[in-house]
Amino acid sequence: MLIKNLPQKMQAVLLDENGRLKVDYIPLSLPGPGQVLIRMAAAPINPSDLGFLKGSYGVQKQFPVVPGFEGSGTVIAAGPGLIPRLWSGRRVTCSASKGGTWAEFLLAPAATCFPLAKHLSLEQGATLIVNPLTALAFFDIAKRGKHAAIISNAAAGALGQMILRLGQTVHMPVIHIVRRKEQVELLRSLGGEYILNSTDSDFDDQLRTLSWKLMATLILDPVAGEQTHHLLDAAPNGSTALIYGFLSGSKEDNLSGNGSKRVEGFYLPDWIAKKSLLKVFLDMQRVQRLAAHELQTTIHKRLPLSEVLQAIVLYQTNPTAGKILLVADNEKIPGDLL
Amino acid sequence: MLIKNLPQKMQAVLLDENGRLKVDYIPLSLPGPGQVLIRMAAAPINPSDLGFLKGSYGVQKQFPVVPGFEGSGTVIAAGPGLIPRLWSGRRVTCSASKGGTWAEFLLAPAATCFPLAKHLSLEQGATLIVNPLTALAFFDIAKRGKHAAIISNAAAGALGQMILRLGQTVHMPVIHIVRRKEQVELLRSLGGEYILNSTDSDFDDQLRTLSWKLMATLILDPVAGEQTHHLLDAAPNGSTALIYGFLSGSKEDNLSGNGSKRVEGFYLPDWIAKKSLLKVFLDMQRVQRLAAHELQTTIHKRLPLSEVLQAIVLYQTNPTAGKILLVADNEKIPGDLL
Repeated sequence: MLIKNLPQKMQAVLLDENGRLKVDYIPLSLPGPGQVLIRMAAAPINPSDLGFLKGSYGVQKQFPVVPGFEGSGTVIAAGPGLIPRLWSGRRVTCSASKGGTWAEFLLAPAATCFPLAKHLSLEQGATLIVNPLTALAFFDIAKRGKHAAIISNAAAGALGQMILRLGQTVHMPVIHIVRRKEQVELLRSLGGEYILNSTDSDFDDQLRTLSWKLMATLILDPVAGEQTHHLLDAAPNGSTALIYGFLSGSKEDNLSGNGSKRVEGFYLPDWIAKKSLLKVFLDMQRVQRLAAHELQTTIHKRLPLSEVLQAIVLYQTNPTAGKILLVADNEKIPGDLL
Repeated sequence: MLIKNLPQKMQAVLLDENGRLKVDYIPLSLPGPGQVLIRMAAAPINPSDLGFLKGSYGVQKQFPVVPGFEGSGTVIAAGPGLIPRLWSGRRVTCSASKGGTWAEFLLAPAATCFPLAKHLSLEQGATLIVNPLTALAFFDIAKRGKHAAIISNAAAGALGQMILRLGQTVHMPVIHIVRRKEQVELLRSLGGEYILNSTDSDFDDQLRTLSWKLMATLILDPVAGEQTHHLLDAAPNGSTALIYGFLSGSKEDNLSGNGSKRVEGFYLPDWIAKKSLLKVFLDMQRVQRLAAHELQTTIHKRLPLSEVLQAIVLYQTNPTAGKILLVADNEKIPGDLL
C-alpha cells in the first residue's frame, strides 16, 4: 500500500440499464492477486465509449457499470504477484476491456497496464492504447499476412491519420479513402500519397486500378455494412477486409466473404489476449516511442468527471477538434499534466 | 394576463460562448406589442439544435443564449395586437428561429405560433414545425417549380420518411437514396417504390436511368458537399439541388451549379418569412391534419430541462429511436401529455 489513507469510496461515472449516466460515490476495493489499484489521472472519450453507452460492443455488463476503456494514472496499491509489485508506485497507461476508467480509481489486472516512459506526460499517457495500439496491430497484421499495401477506409479520423503516419514510417503504401474534398486536402497536407474520394463518379475504377497496381490486399474498414463488400469487390483477389468498427450501424453478423476474398473482425482486446505479455509490452514500448509523432493524439479539453455529460456533448458536437479527457473532480493537477 | 402570479424568473437551458450548457433561472419578461408569453409544455432535440450548439447554422447569438427551435405550450399572456389576443389562452405549437424553446417559458412573436388542433396533444404539437413544415415546403417548391418527381437524399431519417409518406399522398414520385441495405428494407416496408443504395457499384447508372425516366429534377439534399454535385451530375438537365442541411460538414459556400443545373439553399425561417401569415397559417393547418400519419413523429423519451445533457447524449447515441422531448422540471404533466 503506497498511500496511507485510502478512501472507502471513490467518485465514478455510472451507466444504468436505461442508458442514463450519473456521477456518484461507490465502494473502493483493494487489489487481489495480480491486480493493481490506480489513482486515475485522465481518461479519454473515444468512439468505442459512445458504442458502450449505446449498448453495442457486446460487452457483458452488470448495471450500474463504470464506462471508459483506457486512461492513465499512478499505481497506489498492488496485490500479490511479481508484475503488480514491479508496477507499484509507477505512472501507467491502462486499458479496461469491460470499462472502468471514468472514475477516480481503477482496479485492474497489472498485465493490462504499462509503465509510462519518462518523456510522456500522464495526459499523453491517457490515450496510448485504443487508437495507437490498434494502428500498430494493423501493420503487424499486414506484415504477417504478407500484404504489400493497405486500403484504409474512413481515413480522415484520428486513427486514420495514425495509419497514414505509421505507413510513412514503415514504408508501407496506404490507399486512403475519404468522403469529402476537405478530407482529401487534409490527408494531402499530412503527406498522404494515395487518396481517393468515394463520392467521385469513377471511384470504383480508381480503387480497382490503384489497389491492383499496389497489390493492396488488406482493407481496414470501420464503416462495415454494404460498403465493405463494395470495397472488397474492387480489391485484388485474395484480399481480406478487417472490420474494426460499425460506424454505419450495421450488425456484426455479416463477416462472410466470397470466392478468394474474406471479411474478418478486429477487436483489440481479443488481439491483445492472443499475444504473450512480453510481446504486448514490447508493442507498448514502441507505441510510447512513436507517441510524439506517428501515434500522437490531439487533446482538445479536460473536464471533471462530474461534467461527463457536458464532455460527451462537446465531443459529439465537434469530434474532429480532438479528444476530451475526464479527470476526477478532486484531482490536484500534477506538474506534468497540461 | 391569464395567470395571477407570474414568476419573476424561469428555468432555462443556457449555452455559453464555450459551447457549455447549464440549467439556470433567468429573468422573465412580459410580452410587448405582437408578442405572446407561452408556458412551454415540451420541446424536442432536433439535428438543427445540435448544429446550434456546435455553432453552425449562422444564428447570431448573444451569449448566454437559450437553445431550442420549436416546441409547444399554452399562451398565458398576450401583448397588444389582434393575433396575440386571438392566441390568448390557447394551446400552440411554436417556432423560435433564434432559439429559446428549451425553457419554462418562451416570449415569441404571435405570428410564429399556431393554435393546436383539438385532436393533437401538446406532446404531438411539440414537433410540428421543423420537420413537418419543411416536408410540406419541399412539395410546395416541387409543385411551383413544375418538377415531375423528387430525388430525396439521406432518405431514411425522420424527415426522409415524412417525404416518402407525403409523396404517396400527393402522388408525386420520389427516388429515395440511402446508404445501407437495412435502410432500403425500412423504406420498402413503408411502401417506398424507388429506393437506391448509393454504395451499389452501379448506383450512378441506376440514378441516371431512373431520374431521367421520371424526370426527377428536384434534389433534396441534407448532406451537401461533393455528393450534391455527384447527384446533380446524374440528374436530368434543368435539375435543381436544394441543400437543407450540412450533414457532411461542408461549408455553405458552394451553392454554384453548372450548365443548366443549379444548387440552392433551403432555410425554413427564410421560407416562412417570404410567405404571407395566412399562407403559413393554412400550411400549419394542413400539417396538423397530416400529423397523425404522413407527418407523424416518433417520441422516444421525455426528460426534464435539468437533464438536458443526458437528453442530448441519449439522442445522439441512438438518433433513430425517436425524438427526445424536454419539459420544465416543475411541469405538472397535463392530461393530454403522454
